[in-house]
Amino acid sequence: MVDIRYDVLGIGNAIVDVLAPAEDTFLVEHGLVKEAMTLIDAERAEQLYAVMGAGTESSGGSAANTVAGVAALGGSACFIGKVRDDQLGNIFAHDIRAVGVDFHSEPATGGAPTARCLIVVTPDAKRTMNTYLGACVELGPEDVDEDLVAASAITYLEGYLWDPDGAKAAFIKAMGAARAADRKVALSLSDSFCVDRHREEFLDLVEHHVDILFANEDEIISLYQADNFDAAMQAVRGHCEIAALTRSEKGAVIVGRDEVHVIDAEPVEHIVDTTGAGDLYAAGFLAGFSQGRGLPECGHMAGIAAAEVISHMGARPEADLQAFMQDKFR
Amino acid sequence: MVDIRYDVLGIGNAIVDVLAPAEDTFLVEHGLVKEAMTLIDAERAEQLYAVMGAGTESSGGSAANTVAGVAALGGSACFIGKVRDDQLGNIFAHDIRAVGVDFHSEPATGGAPTARCLIVVTPDAKRTMNTYLGACVELGPEDVDEDLVAASAITYLEGYLWDPDGAKAAFIKAMGAARAADRKVALSLSDSFCVDRHREEFLDLVEHHVDILFANEDEIISLYQADNFDAAMQAVRGHCEIAALTRSEKGAVIVGRDEVHVIDAEPVEHIVDTTGAGDLYAAGFLAGFSQGRGLPECGHMAGIAAAEVISHMGARPEADLQAFMQDKFR
Repeated sequence: MVDIRYDVLGIGNAIVDVLAPAEDTFLVEHGLVKEAMTLIDAERAEQLYAVMGAGTESSGGSAANTVAGVAALGGSACFIGKVRDDQLGNIFAHDIRAVGVDFHSEPATGGAPTARCLIVVTPDAKRTMNTYLGACVELGPEDVDEDLVAASAITYLEGYLWDPDGAKAAFIKAMGAARAADRKVALSLSDSFCVDRHREEFLDLVEHHVDILFANEDEIISLYQADNFDAAMQAVRGHCEIAALTRSEKGAVIVGRDEVHVIDAEPVEHIVDTTGAGDLYAAGFLAGFSQGRGLPECGHMAGIAAAEVISHMGARPEADLQAFMQDKFR
Repeated sequence: MVDIRYDVLGIGNAIVDVLAPAEDTFLVEHGLVKEAMTLIDAERAEQLYAVMGAGTESSGGSAANTVAGVAALGGSACFIGKVRDDQLGNIFAHDIRAVGVDFHSEPATGGAPTARCLIVVTPDAKRTMNTYLGACVELGPEDVDEDLVAASAITYLEGYLWDPDGAKAAFIKAMGAARAADRKVALSLSDSFCVDRHREEFLDLVEHHVDILFANEDEIISLYQADNFDAAMQAVRGHCEIAALTRSEKGAVIVGRDEVHVIDAEPVEHIVDTTGAGDLYAAGFLAGFSQGRGLPECGHMAGIAAAEVISHMGARPEADLQAFMQDKFR
């Protein structure tokens, strides 16, 4: 039996975000699907970048944002993901380690460059993401150390891993290792289009392999092809130990085995950029869960962490998330 | 006689900024000189980056920030500076073009990588800069097209160019070309330590070659080794056509041939990061000057542009600087 070293092990696409503001007309003009995450190839990435405004770069990646948030909240966290040995890869590795997350995945020494996500932020603070996966396609099962999984109380997987084949194999290996070691498996459905691409397999995951599910309203409705939120919620109930279903300004519903909690959204004075909202929601939830808190408290912490990240540009918490949490959470 | 195509041609070090917040104790612990720009080598850059917190990357460079500001204010601008053909170089080129600045300098295809400035922002919003010049040392007189200089109403040069030898030669060539074409030469003294390094040559520049001088209080005092601001101001008076002397929250003093204007600082609700304050001050001033405005109006526009850039992280204006200006400037 391996001792537990980490509260959360995150596995995900290792991505550097390029954020630039734009009007809604820009989305129309360039055929972008608002609020979605669209996969693009190198050529399209170059074309799109050329027409985007001046940007700022910061480390991103869904599961990476989540473990960065867990660490910022005082949890112990580790990350597995693939960058290349290039400048953006160095930035990614630097930033995730700088917040205290252990990151040992070897960078690829050839092939495609480090992944980037071209993110357009419209005046309504919504983000529209266009991901060039680059080196992420090099992630494979050989990058998953089963002892590391066994040493982690929770293995957190992003649905986006289902897109590149190697990453999907890494996902399945990690999930098996967590199961074998009697650890928890958490999954984020990532994006409703991602759910569309992998519905049958995601249904199997949710119903047979996942302990803690994170999904927003669109994603859970898409998963069950339900008519409305309540129908989707009833469908997921009982299929996994915990489902945390987020609904933006309507708050969230946490469904446990014998409990349902409806948690109001944390008030935010000025929403600047919703990038990372779901990722930090998961971070707050998992940090609370790791501290042994009950579901309503986990949901409250989740909402506070999400509120912080949408109050500024970028997908990772700024400054001192623990102090921010103490301020709001009593 | 070449027709004028640009209001401002900026020549400077082409740099990508890496900004990270830190406490003042961090500066002490790592021997950083608060609020200064310190030149560092590749090894020191790596050491310092390793201990810095998670950062955000954005295009910087003093003169580059200034021409970006001029363009954001509706002026026509061009930039000369040297990046490498790497990821950070692509980011620099993208960002400056994205705001409408013409940038044609060929990237270096070998040698050191694109320059970066590791910037630590302390809770008092002051920035402490550590610059690894990288590819900037490849800038030389061959990069200065004399026709381009002749086609620019103002050639704006940063004092920092005096650090790498090739850049200094480029500076001198550009200055000569501007003189020969009867165009204006503007200079920013950049930093009091930079003035220390090149005092005699800077005195010669200011007294014989420069039409519009930008300096903050520390820099002008250092230049004349004066006892106080007033003494430095009296010393510079008459030596160049216009000297715009900035004093942070005390505002600025604009000294012309027969006029002296004392302009109050623009009020800023919450100062977040002073990076780029001087650069955007120059941008606002030169934009006003290009529009044929009088010195008090130029000074007012300068203060407004500086106020915008210190109200957020990063050294370039966010969103719509023209709208911001119209809002404040009546």
